[in-house]
Amino acid sequence: MEVKLILVEPQLGENIGAVARVMSNFGFTSLRIVSPRDGWPSEKAIAMAAHGAFVVEEASLYEDFHTAIADLNYVVATTVQDRYMEKPVLSPKKLSSLIGKVGLVLGRERSGLTNEEISYCDAIITIPTSKINPSLNIAQAAAICCYELSKIKPSKSQLPKQALRGDLKLFLEFLEGELEKANFFKNPRIAPTMKRNIRNYFTRSQMTDQDLKTMWGIIRALRGKN
Amino acid sequence: MEVKLILVEPQLGENIGAVARVMSNFGFTSLRIVSPRDGWPSEKAIAMAAHGAFVVEEASLYEDFHTAIADLNYVVATTVQDRYMEKPVLSPKKLSSLIGKVGLVLGRERSGLTNEEISYCDAIITIPTSKINPSLNIAQAAAICCYELSKIKPSKSQLPKQALRGDLKLFLEFLEGELEKANFFKNPRIAPTMKRNIRNYFTRSQMTDQDLKTMWGIIRALRGKN
Repeated sequence: MEVKLILVEPQLGENIGAVARVMSNFGFTSLRIVSPRDGWPSEKAIAMAAHGAFVVEEASLYEDFHTAIADLNYVVATTVQDRYMEKPVLSPKKLSSLIGKVGLVLGRERSGLTNEEISYCDAIITIPTSKINPSLNIAQAAAICCYELSKIKPSKSQLPKQALRGDLKLFLEFLEGELEKANFFKNPRIAPTMKRNIRNYFTRSQMTDQDLKTMWGIIRALRGKN
Repeated sequence: MEVKLILVEPQLGENIGAVARVMSNFGFTSLRIVSPRDGWPSEKAIAMAAHGAFVVEEASLYEDFHTAIADLNYVVATTVQDRYMEKPVLSPKKLSSLIGKVGLVLGRERSGLTNEEISYCDAIITIPTSKINPSLNIAQAAAICCYELSKIKPSKSQLPKQALRGDLKLFLEFLEGELEKANFFKNPRIAPTMKRNIRNYFTRSQMTDQDLKTMWGIIRALRGKN
């Protein structure tokens, strides 16, 4: 398993730096950043990272979330408790059985990840917090995730290596397009929810490359395109 | 078990605030601060604590480490790996069997806790970090400790309730004084190490109030004071 941390639209350079520092504390060095609000590079991020500055300096910048996860096999979103119930909630033990490139996604400081973004994630990790003050600082959430990930010992039983998330997205766009043409989304009021449910199903269904190919063929055949 | 977090000579108000925030995230609200470098109260601490500001506002201030732990039954020091080998290294599971007032001590940002301070602690907690960058930010260390503590479910088997650390210190001073008079520390070069070894032994020996009383009596009797 190869772990990438992905920050989606982080606001403060200090937070990016604090995330980088704690990643390096636990031996993780690959950081991806989607559209940091205050631009890039960030002096504040480098200063805050201290001995983890190399993680900031070697971070990859992305313009949007989908590009940042396109080459990954499994994507885990961090959310506050009970945020989103349709995804499997992952335990560190389960995480250890994943193979390929795994992304751990942390959302914006104030608003977290959108439901749209979460619908493209394979699973969520939830850190149980107090009702009095449930909202963790982003670098604290990163600290706890990295700490848990570093405790994991490789598991012998392995889940199948999933298709790249970019390939899955292409398939979902194709499927939605075909369903539009087939007048599947008749009611515009509930169409967004229906689309999200479809995305959620396919995202959690552990599709391999072969499964994806098969599904492309099935959709084409059903639409009389063979 | 009642948990107190104790910061020894913290340097930056921002770090105190970040510790307070993450404490409240996991339902811990009792913070003790020993001689903060930049004075008290601290606007920076309150700002950084966000919704955890009440923990900063209700924090207790102490002039020295010993006063801050005097009314506790068990004191746990956080240290970097392999710092100090003469103390039991505590697992969260063990922690759950403690009763009474438990203090979790975090040292200075740059230098941590002194060996002298650690010698008065009952146990240490070590967070395993990477050799590349072993030094955790103090608020990150607090985050991981609070996260682990919040996972603990009360254990049915309980350790004896230890004597207050302030009473233990009075006994240790009495004992050292009597040993000085008895010319026990003949070699001044190794006297500090001998004293630390004695403190370490009695600190980890799980003395109850009754044990302490007995030991006072024993020392007095041995010195012909009965």
